[in-house]
Amino acid sequence: DRPLTVIAGPCQLETADHAQMIAGRLKEACDAAGAQYVFKGSFDKANRTSIDAAPALGLEKGLAVLKSVKEAIGVPVTTDVHEKEQCASVAEICDILQIPAFLCRQTALLKAAGSTGAAVNVKKGQFLAPWDMQNVAAKIESTNNHNIMLTERGVSFGYNRLVVDMQSLPEMGRTGYPVIMDATHTVAQPGGLGGASGGQREFAPVMARSAVAVGVAGVFMETHQDPDNAPCDGPNMIYLDQMPGLIDTLMRFDGLAKANPIEI
Amino acid sequence: DRPLTVIAGPCQLETADHAQMIAGRLKEACDAAGAQYVFKGSFDKANRTSIDAAPALGLEKGLAVLKSVKEAIGVPVTTDVHEKEQCASVAEICDILQIPAFLCRQTALLKAAGSTGAAVNVKKGQFLAPWDMQNVAAKIESTNNHNIMLTERGVSFGYNRLVVDMQSLPEMGRTGYPVIMDATHTVAQPGGLGGASGGQREFAPVMARSAVAVGVAGVFMETHQDPDNAPCDGPNMIYLDQMPGLIDTLMRFDGLAKANPIEI
Amino acid sequence: DRPLTVIAGPCQLETADHAQMIAGRLKEACDAAGAQYVFKGSFDKANRTSIDAAPALGLEKGLAVLKSVKEAIGVPVTTDVHEKEQCASVAEICDILQIPAFLCRQTALLKAAGSTGAAVNVKKGQFLAPWDMQNVAAKIESTNNHNIMLTERGVSFGYNRLVVDMQSLPEMGRTGYPVIMDATHTVAQPGGLGGASGGQREFAPVMARSAVAVGVAGVFMETHQDPDNAPCDGPNMIYLDQMPGLIDTLMRFDGLAKANPIEI
Amino acid sequence: DRPLTVIAGPCQLETADHAQMIAGRLKEACDAAGAQYVFKGSFDKANRTSIDAAPALGLEKGLAVLKSVKEAIGVPVTTDVHEKEQCASVAEICDILQIPAFLCRQTALLKAAGSTGAAVNVKKGQFLAPWDMQNVAAKIESTNNHNIMLTERGVSFGYNRLVVDMQSLPEMGRTGYPVIMDATHTVAQPGGLGGASGGQREFAPVMARSAVAVGVAGVFMETHQDPDNAPCDGPNMIYLDQMPGLIDTLMRFDGLAKANPIEI
Repeated sequence: DRPLTVIAGPCQLETADHAQMIAGRLKEACDAAGAQYVFKGSFDKANRTSIDAAPALGLEKGLAVLKSVKEAIGVPVTTDVHEKEQCASVAEICDILQIPAFLCRQTALLKAAGSTGAAVNVKKGQFLAPWDMQNVAAKIESTNNHNIMLTERGVSFGYNRLVVDMQSLPEMGRTGYPVIMDATHTVAQPGGLGGASGGQREFAPVMARSAVAVGVAGVFMETHQDPDNAPCDGPNMIYLDQMPGLIDTLMRFDGLAKANPIEI
Repeated sequence: DRPLTVIAGPCQLETADHAQMIAGRLKEACDAAGAQYVFKGSFDKANRTSIDAAPALGLEKGLAVLKSVKEAIGVPVTTDVHEKEQCASVAEICDILQIPAFLCRQTALLKAAGSTGAAVNVKKGQFLAPWDMQNVAAKIESTNNHNIMLTERGVSFGYNRLVVDMQSLPEMGRTGYPVIMDATHTVAQPGGLGGASGGQREFAPVMARSAVAVGVAGVFMETHQDPDNAPCDGPNMIYLDQMPGLIDTLMRFDGLAKANPIEI
Repeated sequence: DRPLTVIAGPCQLETADHAQMIAGRLKEACDAAGAQYVFKGSFDKANRTSIDAAPALGLEKGLAVLKSVKEAIGVPVTTDVHEKEQCASVAEICDILQIPAFLCRQTALLKAAGSTGAAVNVKKGQFLAPWDMQNVAAKIESTNNHNIMLTERGVSFGYNRLVVDMQSLPEMGRTGYPVIMDATHTVAQPGGLGGASGGQREFAPVMARSAVAVGVAGVFMETHQDPDNAPCDGPNMIYLDQMPGLIDTLMRFDGLAKANPIEI
Repeated sequence: DRPLTVIAGPCQLETADHAQMIAGRLKEACDAAGAQYVFKGSFDKANRTSIDAAPALGLEKGLAVLKSVKEAIGVPVTTDVHEKEQCASVAEICDILQIPAFLCRQTALLKAAGSTGAAVNVKKGQFLAPWDMQNVAAKIESTNNHNIMLTERGVSFGYNRLVVDMQSLPEMGRTGYPVIMDATHTVAQPGGLGGASGGQREFAPVMARSAVAVGVAGVFMETHQDPDNAPCDGPNMIYLDQMPGLIDTLMRFDGLAKANPIEI
């Protein structure tokens, strides 16, 4: 019943200046609306659709950018890890380690992430049922780390499309762990553009609101000042200048939802 | 942007007294919360899972019950039609004719319903995409009847399960017609109990709230004072005594949603 | 373990001459390959995607065409029924009454079809699991008619696409009734062309062969000498001049499958 | 149009004796039926449902077992790789490196596997469309390795179930690479037993035959002399003593299919 946490940032880290600009704007918007804020950015895009996708910063430079955001803006930061060897150094900077959906069953990665002692946010695989996340969480719990978050990011629905089952939110909530709604990846159309993923960013607020009305701990959103020229996930990122209004509206729904919790 | 309409009643009509009792309670709850109310009850269950299902009242007795509700409680009433021959007599009593999801592509039925001049509420088939409803609406429009409503009631998702795609609400809204969320059938598990459909009524408020937060014209819910002993759809009907609280909460979300409309 | 039955013909009946031409060619091909043959053609297309679809012959003229095929070519004939009132007159001409997939749960229609005493071939709804067909069959059995056939025609898989689950064939076979594979509708893309259904006829032999290798009683295929100019289902009908080769190949697979039955 | 390749072995490597016993029996059966044979066994199960699953041999011991099979039985061997660091040492022993379905989009793993020069067999992710595999193959091609195989192992279909779309076989064939049908994992029910995956081994022959009738380069099957006591995937592995009969039947279907190729 704590106020909504907003996990947001660009899909892919670009420069320290760019990251700080985005983090600063979002921090301001979250402060104004009463939301908690966590900055997110990726140092690697390990599973891009195409081999020709724009290259990412890499681990070392990426962590430096994340560190600069943490220090300059004073907000917690998170990024996604893809190999067990990355977990320790990422945990030195990041407050939350994010496990990508495709990798949510990789035991060694989950254990390495859990062993750092940092919070671990696992995205539910597009191929999993919400109740299957109990077994995923148990792999992290085996490291005596119970600082776990579970993120809904849609489930496979035919070819090149995801659907979000709102029932999955309270289903995952049965684990007792905070549930996050990823509002931008759920509107992606995986592989839908041939050599890249498509998306329909205009539907991201639909997903965010629906989930917040049900009652979630947080919302994950990717944003960019110029999505169409961003190095990745352009079609589903939200325009940065629309974020303050969206966050403000979500906080109103969050207040109403948390005053009227649904019991499952 | 008008306040939410609540279309609600028992799955299957039982007696005039029973129907009036339910309609009376729901009218009172809707009045208190500022919602519009429409009573719904079926005179026939033409597509029950099993041949052994409880028999229904039939057309003549069912219409008499609906008429008694309309006169005694003073609310609009609706019921579902299954054969084109039923439309004219149903339209003499009912303000809205409901087309069942399985029948939403039957041209003759849609045209017969449209020709009565009554409002026609078509449930989206479990096998259709939201954009396919444009062609469904066009069949009714061919009768010069533009008093059309489109209802989301879930789409097939593997076997014996439905999922609601929240994106379908604004997608159907593109037709310009009011969109209704069926919050109880969407949590049914078709065929999930062998000789009957299963369901998880505890998730109905999840569906209702999610949809209302996005912004819909109405919510459809089936309710009963004793769902476990109701002649049909027990597993997903909502307890009657929980309806006033649910309607009140939905109206708060509706107010917030309509003050902050999503533009698609 | 009887040789394969081929149920085939144009989607929509056109003229008696046209129907007899197609039936004659297919009868010849089936005789040559050792298959049983049943002619199929529709007198009405009650659930076309769009209101603007080409009109059909209607019941009376359609039955006259079917009768002419039966008499002139000497083969059993089948057509689909959409309203309970049609069953008796259709059964006077047709050996098999076909229940459309969307209508496979309509109790009154199933009972009316069963009561004629003719064989009843029910297409599995795109929204049903194979084991749900037991309840469908029971509705026909309630009329003391056990001359039932169950047809696989694909299940909803996301939007505007069907998938055939080959496991459904032996699953439906557990009822003890003959199982038919509809090889052409399964490759349709429902609603996929906006105002009409799309399809990929080149995949029809993939579906037919797969099913025959598993072991089925029959294969259903729609065919036309000029599919692209046929009044319906053009995109998934097979060219008539390719049918003899296809039937011949299927019979070879059928012989192998029935000599090596799969036990489930 | 070469005869079918059978890729088969136990899910998880146990001992050298056990592996050689299985490889020996399968080699004999394949020789008798005219099939090519490749032994498969896993040294690690990196994505088991539960943390409590039986431990695997690990890389070093596993490779020793694979080497012993290769030398003692004289057959090519394959195993699955999970981390890019494993590829080089695995390629010293194995003729084919298998990429697990969950990892089929991990660029670094695909490039590491491709760079070894060994053949790379990628299982299609449960979340991918068949046409998406073109981009997957391109990641391997970027290493100048065109010795690629693509394996169908089912696509997500609702919760806890997969479905095989037979159309995916010729769709993937459009890449020009050999297509393999995984007949045992496709009948698994992921997560379907709570802490383990369920399965229905009786349906594996259904999948194998269906695919072979369409025309594939190979069939992948897991087998064990005592599946119910095997360390993993028991519910969907085929009894070893049923393999010779199954392989023999598949070769008959393969001969028929390759004499009558389907052109897409």
